[in-house]
Amino acid sequence: MFEFKVTHQDDTGARTGEFVTPHGVLETPVFAPVGTAATVKATQPRDLVELGASLVLSNTYHLYLRPGDEVVRDMGGLHNFMQWQGPMLTDSGGFQVFSLSDSNKIDQDGVTFKSHLDGSKHRFTPESSIAIQENLGADIIMAFDECPPPDNHEYVKRSLTRTHPWLLRCIEAKKRDDQALFGIVQGGIFRDLREESAKFMIDLDLPGYAIGGLAVGETKLQMHQALEWLHPILPQNKPRYLMGVGTPEDLINGVLRGVDIFDCVLPTRLARHGTAFVKGGRMNLRKAMYERDERPISPDSPISQYSRAYLRHLVRSNEILASVLLSMHNIGFLINVIKDMRLAIRENRLQAYADEYLSHY
Amino acid sequence: MFEFKVTHQDDTGARTGEFVTPHGVLETPVFAPVGTAATVKATQPRDLVELGASLVLSNTYHLYLRPGDEVVRDMGGLHNFMQWQGPMLTDSGGFQVFSLSDSNKIDQDGVTFKSHLDGSKHRFTPESSIAIQENLGADIIMAFDECPPPDNHEYVKRSLTRTHPWLLRCIEAKKRDDQALFGIVQGGIFRDLREESAKFMIDLDLPGYAIGGLAVGETKLQMHQALEWLHPILPQNKPRYLMGVGTPEDLINGVLRGVDIFDCVLPTRLARHGTAFVKGGRMNLRKAMYERDERPISPDSPISQYSRAYLRHLVRSNEILASVLLSMHNIGFLINVIKDMRLAIRENRLQAYADEYLSHY
Repeated sequence: MFEFKVTHQDDTGARTGEFVTPHGVLETPVFAPVGTAATVKATQPRDLVELGASLVLSNTYHLYLRPGDEVVRDMGGLHNFMQWQGPMLTDSGGFQVFSLSDSNKIDQDGVTFKSHLDGSKHRFTPESSIAIQENLGADIIMAFDECPPPDNHEYVKRSLTRTHPWLLRCIEAKKRDDQALFGIVQGGIFRDLREESAKFMIDLDLPGYAIGGLAVGETKLQMHQALEWLHPILPQNKPRYLMGVGTPEDLINGVLRGVDIFDCVLPTRLARHGTAFVKGGRMNLRKAMYERDERPISPDSPISQYSRAYLRHLVRSNEILASVLLSMHNIGFLINVIKDMRLAIRENRLQAYADEYLSHY
Repeated sequence: MFEFKVTHQDDTGARTGEFVTPHGVLETPVFAPVGTAATVKATQPRDLVELGASLVLSNTYHLYLRPGDEVVRDMGGLHNFMQWQGPMLTDSGGFQVFSLSDSNKIDQDGVTFKSHLDGSKHRFTPESSIAIQENLGADIIMAFDECPPPDNHEYVKRSLTRTHPWLLRCIEAKKRDDQALFGIVQGGIFRDLREESAKFMIDLDLPGYAIGGLAVGETKLQMHQALEWLHPILPQNKPRYLMGVGTPEDLINGVLRGVDIFDCVLPTRLARHGTAFVKGGRMNLRKAMYERDERPISPDSPISQYSRAYLRHLVRSNEILASVLLSMHNIGFLINVIKDMRLAIRENRLQAYADEYLSHY
């Protein structure tokens, strides 16, 4: 279980691979839509299957607070609860504790925080994060870490003195052998710290490595640099997961730099704001120019039967179907970019694909 | 076109039938989910097909205001706009003008009203209602009428002096021959007025007859009485449409009294409030008792793969998927009741079916 095999490697260093999980073999690169509260917002699992989704992420922080990880466990785990039969991934809750909760307080042992739902007080430690994730039962689980602001060398360095021991505690706490625990390489925008963090984790021979602390305020150039530093260091035979990314451009730049797994709320969040991914940018369907536009968003959209005029009407009328259909479009859009890249890698033309695609931005 | 054939008649007088429309043959009795603004809320057309929906209603008042009936016409009509390929029905806008708009003012020629969206001033007449419905392009369209409070004999009688001449004007104004114009029998809870209204319309030999002004505050007994007065009067060879109804019990009581067509927003509205139809009542999925309930709402639900526990979680989390799934359940529920009645009529056992079903309420 959890073998990862590189099936092709392109001249750029980008690779296709297969990752074996208890719920099926993941073809990489892969984009995972995010099902925060055990639902990819506005999307039925069967529609996700049809869109070609293979991996779904869900959030430990949210499910711990509601309905409670023990409820999910008692209902047969996350797969059964939300009726997603393919591979799943949960994060550790660390990121949300800092970004969503009130009055969080970190110490060497863990984090105390208040729920964003009702202000109630809670505490996460490496051990509790693993226990929660074992209750949830995803195929891939994440080490509990701190996600620091990326540009303060002193703070990021001190943060590693928490994140690294916490990883050891996560490994120690883990009981289930049908879940792959990924370490999360931190280190902000600093080469020395990224390398230090990666080396610490590589020595532990984990089944996969996440790259955390990016897409949190640094520049695109800084993100690309961090990936380039890690690309030659991280082991070839383990999957690499760039957390919380992203846009079509980010996926392409990530794959070019050796990333295998991505996740992001962007496709469903944009959908709820009436916005669709299109090659070269985004289409705001609220605009008056689409009032009588009979064309689909794009001819290859999974919702190409619907006109821009109709989608505009749904968006303006705050109809639920607007979120449903645009979520399908946006998720399908990113999955298609990923599929195109898998094919380009196999045909050793990823650089040409990327150059052409990125020239539209 | 628009032939209606009774295919079976049960001892109760209830009937199954076939109504030929430009978008297919409707099997009756039929329940039409309501797509107010050219979308059955939270539901994809392909899901409606799978649920067995055959007729969809949309609202003239809403589409006139947004996106505008001329936009719908320019986009190829309502079927093409919303991608529903089966038969459709539009109402006349009369009911909404009175129930939704502000400061409406009726005269012998028509109604002036303010939009509930932006307060702008508009006017509907029989002629404009038909023109709008011709732009929308549904298979079945409705005469413009007044829907008066049902229990004031003097007012209801005076109202017929508007509704009846307006019907003549609608017939005169109608240009398209691929749309069936139904008259709407009014008369409130009064036998003399119901009979007067029905006779006026029957003489016009319309392709179908709607029964309006019910489900607007009268008792169930009064509704049943009105249907019983009309049952022997309305022609056997024309479909009868009871507007805005209803609940499973209402459908059964309507079919027992000769009704062929129903529509109601209830299934989708209840869904958005976290409530599911079940035999004998309604299930409020917000309740704590469902926290760990692994059962589906009912074994024959179209969403039986999902547990009550999961649906409760979605409802409590205000997730869009709650509305999506519960809308499917509730629409499927009413369609299944209708299907069961069609079978019971064919097997001449509708009374037994109704007695058993209604004993649960």
